[in-house]
Amino acid sequence: MYRMNADPTFEDVLAAAERIRGHVHRTPVMTSEAIDRIAGAGLHFKCENLQKVGAFKARGATNAVLLLDEDSAQRGVATHSSGNHAAALAYAASIRGIPAHVVMPSSAPPVKRSAVEGYGAEITECKPTLDARETTLAEVVERTGATFIHAYDNPMVIAGQGTASLELITDAPDLDAVIAPVGGGGLMSGTAIAVSASRPDIAIWGSEPAGADDAFRSLRDGTRYPSVEPKTVADGLLTSLSDRTFRILGQRLEGILTVSEENIIRAMRLLWERMKLVVEPSGAVPLAAVLEHPDHFADRRVGLIISGGNVDLDNLPWTRSKRSNVLTFSV
Amino acid sequence: MYRMNADPTFEDVLAAAERIRGHVHRTPVMTSEAIDRIAGAGLHFKCENLQKVGAFKARGATNAVLLLDEDSAQRGVATHSSGNHAAALAYAASIRGIPAHVVMPSSAPPVKRSAVEGYGAEITECKPTLDARETTLAEVVERTGATFIHAYDNPMVIAGQGTASLELITDAPDLDAVIAPVGGGGLMSGTAIAVSASRPDIAIWGSEPAGADDAFRSLRDGTRYPSVEPKTVADGLLTSLSDRTFRILGQRLEGILTVSEENIIRAMRLLWERMKLVVEPSGAVPLAAVLEHPDHFADRRVGLIISGGNVDLDNLPWTRSKRSNVLTFSV
Repeated sequence: MYRMNADPTFEDVLAAAERIRGHVHRTPVMTSEAIDRIAGAGLHFKCENLQKVGAFKARGATNAVLLLDEDSAQRGVATHSSGNHAAALAYAASIRGIPAHVVMPSSAPPVKRSAVEGYGAEITECKPTLDARETTLAEVVERTGATFIHAYDNPMVIAGQGTASLELITDAPDLDAVIAPVGGGGLMSGTAIAVSASRPDIAIWGSEPAGADDAFRSLRDGTRYPSVEPKTVADGLLTSLSDRTFRILGQRLEGILTVSEENIIRAMRLLWERMKLVVEPSGAVPLAAVLEHPDHFADRRVGLIISGGNVDLDNLPWTRSKRSNVLTFSV
Repeated sequence: MYRMNADPTFEDVLAAAERIRGHVHRTPVMTSEAIDRIAGAGLHFKCENLQKVGAFKARGATNAVLLLDEDSAQRGVATHSSGNHAAALAYAASIRGIPAHVVMPSSAPPVKRSAVEGYGAEITECKPTLDARETTLAEVVERTGATFIHAYDNPMVIAGQGTASLELITDAPDLDAVIAPVGGGGLMSGTAIAVSASRPDIAIWGSEPAGADDAFRSLRDGTRYPSVEPKTVADGLLTSLSDRTFRILGQRLEGILTVSEENIIRAMRLLWERMKLVVEPSGAVPLAAVLEHPDHFADRRVGLIISGGNVDLDNLPWTRSKRSNVLTFSV
């Protein structure tokens, strides 16, 4: 049942939708005449910032946790993350009443730590290096017998993320194109699988900060590059593709559009001002792609996935840039 | 038909709902388990921050403008306002394709000015005193023949504002109480008329900043006090009741609950962080009332009207207070 080594299929996405229903929100698809006028296109925003834990990550984590057999489930789940996946896994574990172990770098902001603790997860601190995270996670898994649920390199996580665009194309049935942000490629892979199978006429675009364009370069050159020293305000998009997500995206994407930091912040502010939605920088990247590459979308109907809304309200990008006249990046 | 001197009735609210349908949004009613846990009550937020022009004011202005006879309509409409009513009246006039004249103090923030201009209104500047506003408005009306549409002391504006709670009690049918913010009393009067007539079992509460508590004191003492030197971050609630709104509220409210600046900002931040909604300080006052007066609402189902979401993103109250350690009030 839990086919760790196979790529997820459209049937996996449909089964995930059935499985997670009632545990995650069916988020609204919202529109804005004001932003349509600015963009010169008909935009349909899938509001995953209004999802449980404030991000689409609740979908994939819930699907993966609900699929565990009873014995494994009782030993709990584990991951390393300082971001939305940690909160999502903690939430999913709480649904099933099982332990969640989260390895977090000591540098993680207190607000993220307390969000994860709020869902009842046990946090293990480690040094802020990828090596320390992986070693500490291995120790936790060894000690507890918990199942490691990767943030994106997991077929059932990917299948869960695909349910967002399944709802999007149901609620906005006349789309010409769909755009999602690309970090590790979990959301993008799920989106590509769901949309290509059910609506092969829809163009599927990725969007990525120019300062973290490893996926763009990987697909362009047909070889997977790691994300090295990414520099972007979109702190959810710093990770590298896995072999799996690289393969899935290479088969199904129209292309990946890169965007400037300026356009990410402009798009984010438009969503706050015109739609009254709190959106994190990563969630504004698809709108930034429409603003920066208008030729692809002129007068088209476009679905955009607002991936999340978890942002430090004391440290907004426009406030930062105003204070210092220099953008500081949260990498 | 346009009964300027009679109080609006429940039938006026029902007719307004029919009249403005298709011109304003039917806004969603949203909930948050996280905020319910903090508040100890079941809260249902009517999201008028997601309304046209970002505030409930679109309802009343649209109702009043659509009710004008053809001759009056062609001469246009006029008002003095630096806030949401100005944008709402400009929007309503644009629906009907008629002129809108807005008298604005020279001190109005450029962002508010351009919002009103964006809807095609003609702005006349005046000195930032009530006297100058009224004199300038009288000149504009004299010159153009436009009809003055008051922001709240107008029965058809009040009837339009009442349509928000009509939708609220339809979408959340089991409410025990409803809370709206009180400024001039237009939204509160419409709410009281709509709820008391259709659901007399629901307790109707007003909520008001302690620093602008003229309505609280007026109802307590049975005499109408003007709002003198109000001091609050809730810049939509600085105005005084009119004879009409004072009379309507006195007949129908359970009471008015006053709230501290600290609780307004805390409530606003909760709505941003937990619900990912951009809400202006005035729109957070009903939640502040639940936080400050929990005994009235413990374990009850409560409807709260989030009145608007128009806020200066460069000047958020928590940023201001952090920077200076002293709250600055926008009066």
